[in-house]
Amino acid sequence: MPEEESLDPQNWDTLKQLGHRMVDDMIEYLKTVGERPAWQPVPEEVKVRFKRPLPIEPQSWEQIYQDFCQDVQPFLKGNIHPRFWGWVEGTGTPFGMFAELLAAGLNPNVNFGDQSPVYVEMQVLDWCKQMLGYPDEASGLIVGGGSEANLIGLAVARNAKANFPVAQEGLQSAPQKLTVYGSDEMHNSIQKAVQLLGLGSDSLRRIPVNADFRVDVATLQAAIAEDRDRGHQPFCIVGNAGTVNSGAIDDLESLADIAQDEGLWFHVDGAFGALAALAPKLRTLLKGMERADSLAFDLHKWMSVPYEAGCVLIRHAKQHHETFSPSGAYLAHVTRGAAAGPIWFGEYGIQLSRGFRALKIWMMLKEHGSAKYGRLIQQNADQARNLAKLIAAAPELELLSPVALNVVCFRFRDEKLNESQVNDLNREILMQLHESGVAVPSYTSLHGKYAIRVAITNHRSRREDFDVLLQEVIRRGRDISQRGSSKQSVWLCTNIRME
Amino acid sequence: MPEEESLDPQNWDTLKQLGHRMVDDMIEYLKTVGERPAWQPVPEEVKVRFKRPLPIEPQSWEQIYQDFCQDVQPFLKGNIHPRFWGWVEGTGTPFGMFAELLAAGLNPNVNFGDQSPVYVEMQVLDWCKQMLGYPDEASGLIVGGGSEANLIGLAVARNAKANFPVAQEGLQSAPQKLTVYGSDEMHNSIQKAVQLLGLGSDSLRRIPVNADFRVDVATLQAAIAEDRDRGHQPFCIVGNAGTVNSGAIDDLESLADIAQDEGLWFHVDGAFGALAALAPKLRTLLKGMERADSLAFDLHKWMSVPYEAGCVLIRHAKQHHETFSPSGAYLAHVTRGAAAGPIWFGEYGIQLSRGFRALKIWMMLKEHGSAKYGRLIQQNADQARNLAKLIAAAPELELLSPVALNVVCFRFRDEKLNESQVNDLNREILMQLHESGVAVPSYTSLHGKYAIRVAITNHRSRREDFDVLLQEVIRRGRDISQRGSSKQSVWLCTNIRME
Repeated sequence: MPEEESLDPQNWDTLKQLGHRMVDDMIEYLKTVGERPAWQPVPEEVKVRFKRPLPIEPQSWEQIYQDFCQDVQPFLKGNIHPRFWGWVEGTGTPFGMFAELLAAGLNPNVNFGDQSPVYVEMQVLDWCKQMLGYPDEASGLIVGGGSEANLIGLAVARNAKANFPVAQEGLQSAPQKLTVYGSDEMHNSIQKAVQLLGLGSDSLRRIPVNADFRVDVATLQAAIAEDRDRGHQPFCIVGNAGTVNSGAIDDLESLADIAQDEGLWFHVDGAFGALAALAPKLRTLLKGMERADSLAFDLHKWMSVPYEAGCVLIRHAKQHHETFSPSGAYLAHVTRGAAAGPIWFGEYGIQLSRGFRALKIWMMLKEHGSAKYGRLIQQNADQARNLAKLIAAAPELELLSPVALNVVCFRFRDEKLNESQVNDLNREILMQLHESGVAVPSYTSLHGKYAIRVAITNHRSRREDFDVLLQEVIRRGRDISQRGSSKQSVWLCTNIRME
Repeated sequence: MPEEESLDPQNWDTLKQLGHRMVDDMIEYLKTVGERPAWQPVPEEVKVRFKRPLPIEPQSWEQIYQDFCQDVQPFLKGNIHPRFWGWVEGTGTPFGMFAELLAAGLNPNVNFGDQSPVYVEMQVLDWCKQMLGYPDEASGLIVGGGSEANLIGLAVARNAKANFPVAQEGLQSAPQKLTVYGSDEMHNSIQKAVQLLGLGSDSLRRIPVNADFRVDVATLQAAIAEDRDRGHQPFCIVGNAGTVNSGAIDDLESLADIAQDEGLWFHVDGAFGALAALAPKLRTLLKGMERADSLAFDLHKWMSVPYEAGCVLIRHAKQHHETFSPSGAYLAHVTRGAAAGPIWFGEYGIQLSRGFRALKIWMMLKEHGSAKYGRLIQQNADQARNLAKLIAAAPELELLSPVALNVVCFRFRDEKLNESQVNDLNREILMQLHESGVAVPSYTSLHGKYAIRVAITNHRSRREDFDVLLQEVIRRGRDISQRGSSKQSVWLCTNIRME
């Protein structure tokens, strides 16, 4: 018989030394992150190396780590940088990084079992409920992120509210069309979920928003009534606690009232906004969220937990469990041995095998405490409000939406240009901000206007970072605008593909 | 204005030192893992600490790490131990642990962007195709695990095969019932997916298996014909490449032929078995897998990548993309700046924000090379076959299913006992194996017989570990059996709740 091998190292000490080097390098890297460009493109020669075929034979640790340092580490999108405010992304933390080291070392499968990782996740779920004022008896699950959390919430909603056995018979047996309601500004993961669940995007009613980008409640009520008149079965309202475009928070109290009156499921997509509940001055904006039947939110955004970490909480534990618990002989429950334990998380979501995401949340909540998170969320909201003030005070800048929470949409303006030219100009400004490595805001379209969009969920950002942003926008805006008068192609050749 | 705070450390050097300690401790822990019990229960006093409320104020790193060392680290289910063969779980590796450190330090959101993590994932997907002989032009996604991969495969199947606009109109508009086929032994994630997709579990046809636990192909064909006669629309066949219960691999070539003849989608659930393609002597068992329209498999099982890492490959990239790409203004694509880049992974699966799971796969494939993985998978298969031989040679043991790959199901027998008593006896043996910390096999029910189930996907297991297992099963079997003759309650009070 051949000698048996393993994937463990021949020389543990050498690997330990490499581990120390990685720790040193990464700490130095994170400490100095603000001194480097917020973003730089991946060079062509690096892209070529990412085309190399499957390694058949082993490479040395030294070589692999060098590949990492040379080709991977320098070329990030920038979300750990103090001047990154694109989309809505998380920053992460050094201590969170170490928590991931520990989680990967223990490498538990957190599906079930009488094992500490299961208890850690249960505690983290309890803490999430406590942070958001959600009932203790709710069930929940730590998931990969808000999209998965939304999908789980809507799945339970569908199964709980359908007036026929949808899990067994499927939607083919639906006596009525099941309809869902949310604002025009809701996240695309809602549409994804509705389609995945077999409801069809036609059943998703996109209700217009007011000037403040919050759902128009009267229109929502009318849409429900109209659907009932048509013989459909309205079953779910989706409320936004922080829209992606503008950070708007729907009137959740009114939505909860309507859901209650109409007998609908109330799902709140609180992807990043839900955690604003930790900030005493912001909490009031979220009034009504605690009445949701299901609540989805991320921890890898405003809590800076390293990717991935999201959470879904469900007020009705039994319906939650029923939606995700088909049985199998090999999944029989026991009360003794390694497979005992208080819960089978695999019966509350899509995943069966599950990693130990809860550990980083557990360690980081202990590290900072919820009060500090509240202060930092307030700090980002204050930074947004301050930025909006500076924009309002600058004659060349225009604020494009009110600041509801932490998102600031604005543009450079030049009265000599028409709307289309102003759009092109701002697109060029944004590209130059990225390409120069100065900052990474993102962009959106608000009422047809191209907006530079600053979404602040970044614990590394300081007042002066926003000053740099505005200085650079104005400087570049003027510069492009001047050059543009003589040579329009400079800002028109941005080759944008909007979809 | 108040002074601004951040989540970064005040003292980077102190944190660096803690990182070094964690590295040292974890390396020592993994090096000596086999010297500790495979499992031990979580003590009551530890459970009590996991009930403590949300921390409002910060705790020291020292305290948090001590909590981890005291309450978390010692109480695992055992899957990193050399004598863990329960369910189908992965072992992880020390180098994989360091890869997770680096991934969490960089903390990218691998949705889109001109950033190296996107290229790393593309390369890993290419490598996965190369490992499994799957076409280069296929699309794919690194996901949390096999359940998510199965869901994605079936979602694309549904949308691609439905003869009506299912994404828009939903299944309410289905002119015919859409039916799916798989064996009795398929994984419960298939049923979960079918229910989630709104098809209803009634539409999932569970085709009986032969004595070797492979799907009966003739019965499958008859079931498809019968459904057509009834006016249904068969749309998908699910083939198993390694069932959970017994490791059986369906006749994938025949299933591919039927799917082709009938115009059905062919999905292969290769959760752990697919990677047997890396072992030259096993590859032939998987013939036909490369013809799948979609292929789901895990990397956190037989590749020992730390949790979580799975993959789905789809032969039809366009249909894959269409299934998961609702549009949104803030997700507009560009060709310059940080948001440029070759692909938007968020448009190929459930998640939008996505962690850097690809890094650990990338680093571990470089570390070992695919050839070594092939040898280790073969080693596990050889260990299973060898174990089966030892069982067959032991008069007190009985093999309960043929060894197709790496799963061995067996029991202790005692001719003085009836079937029900033998079941109880073996249940007690298993519990004692766990409770003594000797080993963690799991259990299943095969044709009504309680089976001790050994699923070997463990790179740390050695021949002598299996010798220990059998010695202990026989010793304990005899012991319980003898005591049982005088005091039957010893093995009847196991308080099992089978579901």
